[in-house]
Amino acid sequence: MIELINYPNGKKISESNVTHHISASRRGMTLEADINQTNEYYLSTDKAVIHKKPTPVQIVHVDYPKRTAAKITEAYFKVPSTTDYNGIYRGKYIDFEAKETASKTSFPFSSIHPHQIEHLKKVLQHGAIGFFIIRFKAYDETFFVEASKIIPHYLDDQKRSLSYKWFKEEGILIPFGLSPSVHYLKVIDQLYFRRSV
Amino acid sequence: MIELINYPNGKKISESNVTHHISASRRGMTLEADINQTNEYYLSTDKAVIHKKPTPVQIVHVDYPKRTAAKITEAYFKVPSTTDYNGIYRGKYIDFEAKETASKTSFPFSSIHPHQIEHLKKVLQHGAIGFFIIRFKAYDETFFVEASKIIPHYLDDQKRSLSYKWFKEEGILIPFGLSPSVHYLKVIDQLYFRRSV
Repeated sequence: MIELINYPNGKKISESNVTHHISASRRGMTLEADINQTNEYYLSTDKAVIHKKPTPVQIVHVDYPKRTAAKITEAYFKVPSTTDYNGIYRGKYIDFEAKETASKTSFPFSSIHPHQIEHLKKVLQHGAIGFFIIRFKAYDETFFVEASKIIPHYLDDQKRSLSYKWFKEEGILIPFGLSPSVHYLKVIDQLYFRRSV
Repeated sequence: MIELINYPNGKKISESNVTHHISASRRGMTLEADINQTNEYYLSTDKAVIHKKPTPVQIVHVDYPKRTAAKITEAYFKVPSTTDYNGIYRGKYIDFEAKETASKTSFPFSSIHPHQIEHLKKVLQHGAIGFFIIRFKAYDETFFVEASKIIPHYLDDQKRSLSYKWFKEEGILIPFGLSPSVHYLKVIDQLYFRRSV
């Protein structure tokens, strides 16, 4: 069975999959744009190979015009069965999900799909470095949180969110720069390799 | 810049992204269907977490009907920047591309994108297990070939293909079964871990 989802007003459609231009100024850059820029930096400097997966789409109808590119005329968004990002760093398998919230007080679990939690649990069992990158837009703060810290809270039926305060205590603030803008490998080095990039 | 591609007659559109039914009988199963079944088996038996990436699509227009799922009404296929499959096995990052050919004599390089070769080169540098799964449909034979063996031939300007004979000599025949149908981890165990699954 394939689950289809509605992305109201197109807000959640991944940037890399919708044709529009991103403002050249940093202010207003989405977390996704920052991470894509960071991953391109890692790729071009041979630090790591980490990519965003394409948005999963269920294609129903395709037109094949003679002289131009095949055109998909009917398709729907599917619920992702994995996280958005994975790759390799220092020989280790890397896997993470990135989310930003406009809330000043908490991060809502509703933006993470149960499949993604299940996926992270599995890859951790197999030896992955699995984590979340969570941005509080109101403070322009971006936290690195190990998946193993978030998963038990997510699976706790009583909880619907984690407070900003919790991220301040349990998360690690990702250093911000121009390039790379979200230097999360620096955090991974501290946590898993005890050396700096 | 985004490269768009035409998939003539829809032949190459990935199965998991087009709505149609696959024959229940093994005969006529595509390589992709076999690998998906195999990966599901590995996932459900906790052997490995390996997924096919969604087909990369450039979304141009989306309709948001009030009561039903968001409908993509204009989109195009993009040239993939990575391979189709990746994941984790015994703590190692796994990355591969799978292709089948109807030819009885050779496998044409035209079905592999230069980006995919570049990607495999990069992940190998970072310590990945990178390879190809190539099926000769005429013989119902599926070969495992390490990426490091194919890449130099692909990059050789004089070469446009590799012969079936080459695969017989340099590739490893993947054992075929009912479940998993394309048991490629068995080959990985022999090559990289020297033990059986």
